[in-house]
Amino acid sequence: MVMTLEAKVIRVLIGRHPLVTLPQKQASPDAAYLVSERVPAVRATLEGLEGDRHAGFTRRADARVPQYPRGTEIHNSRHVSLIGEEELAHIAANLGVPVVAPEWIGANLVLRGITNLSHLPPMTRISFPEETAIALEGENHPCVYPGKAIQHHYPDRPDVGKHFPKAAYHLRGVVGWIERPGMIREGDIVRITVPEQAPYRVAGTGDAVTSAH
Amino acid sequence: MVMTLEAKVIRVLIGRHPLVTLPQKQASPDAAYLVSERVPAVRATLEGLEGDRHAGFTRRADARVPQYPRGTEIHNSRHVSLIGEEELAHIAANLGVPVVAPEWIGANLVLRGITNLSHLPPMTRISFPEETAIALEGENHPCVYPGKAIQHHYPDRPDVGKHFPKAAYHLRGVVGWIERPGMIREGDIVRITVPEQAPYRVAGTGDAVTSAH
Repeated sequence: MVMTLEAKVIRVLIGRHPLVTLPQKQASPDAAYLVSERVPAVRATLEGLEGDRHAGFTRRADARVPQYPRGTEIHNSRHVSLIGEEELAHIAANLGVPVVAPEWIGANLVLRGITNLSHLPPMTRISFPEETAIALEGENHPCVYPGKAIQHHYPDRPDVGKHFPKAAYHLRGVVGWIERPGMIREGDIVRITVPEQAPYRVAGTGDAVTSAH
Repeated sequence: MVMTLEAKVIRVLIGRHPLVTLPQKQASPDAAYLVSERVPAVRATLEGLEGDRHAGFTRRADARVPQYPRGTEIHNSRHVSLIGEEELAHIAANLGVPVVAPEWIGANLVLRGITNLSHLPPMTRISFPEETAIALEGENHPCVYPGKAIQHHYPDRPDVGKHFPKAAYHLRGVVGWIERPGMIREGDIVRITVPEQAPYRVAGTGDAVTSAH
């Protein structure tokens, strides 16, 4: 059964800092390179958000795709990072801090109205009033670097940043690609189309070899 | 739970005919434009299969994405069409014909060993021995044109082609994009990684408006 939901875009943010190497990531004390900047609107092209470092038809393989050697040029299905306002508040509560700003964790869009945004499945589509459509690759699994940016804002809470991956587990939003170009504006009401999900089960035997892990 | 399956590539096929317009599709008596040609191997680039008409970072919106005006330039997540040998036999049985060749319906790859290939969910990944990886958009829903190509091969069975969409329902395979470039060869043993599927349920209320259809 296809489901349709609605949400409101309450922040639009651009990651203007260029991509950095793994050693640069590791050496950065505050992960300043991943901080995004609030803008009233952005143009979405088929390569991604204009001016954002994640734009491009292709990208370099990183820790998100450990099955490929790091640096391999691969298809880019991670143009945009979306986070739910409600889940962001949940992460802050888990960390015991008053707020985690979407800028600190490099989000591009903050949506209000879908309390479990991170659970939206692959190929969910998000349609904007001015033609833009985003297709979702799926959940964005938390890594350690946003924790450094959070830590930077709570110097009196040593080690709070280290708890980010656990505090953000299944709460860190989703990523996806621009399927149809257009504009994205703060205040947009978006339509979210969740595809039918048929659970896959191994059928018959054929030559199939199955292993679960 | 992530699942890993294995299958064998028993055919590699290229669609060499250029893309045609909707009126051309409708006017073609035998859908010759969609017929693909068997090759021993093909190079897969980040734009698709070399020499295949579906290659490209972008494509024009068609009946597969009725939410966009026809002809709109959109992201191309349909580089490759994969069909299961077992499902193809099932389609032939449903039509009451001895065989439906993968060429006739424009398939690019025929896999043996996954009896319910069409059920593989979005973001399933298929890895080949020579680096290539395909990520799946999901099921390829049958349309009327392959029926014309099938009809052309069974002139003594008037109307058999018209039954294709129903006969191929949930059996027509899957489509996806090249995520990592490399080679694809007949005889390749591929590893299929099926992602964890968490069924989405609307949680809480927030501002979400839900409708099911």
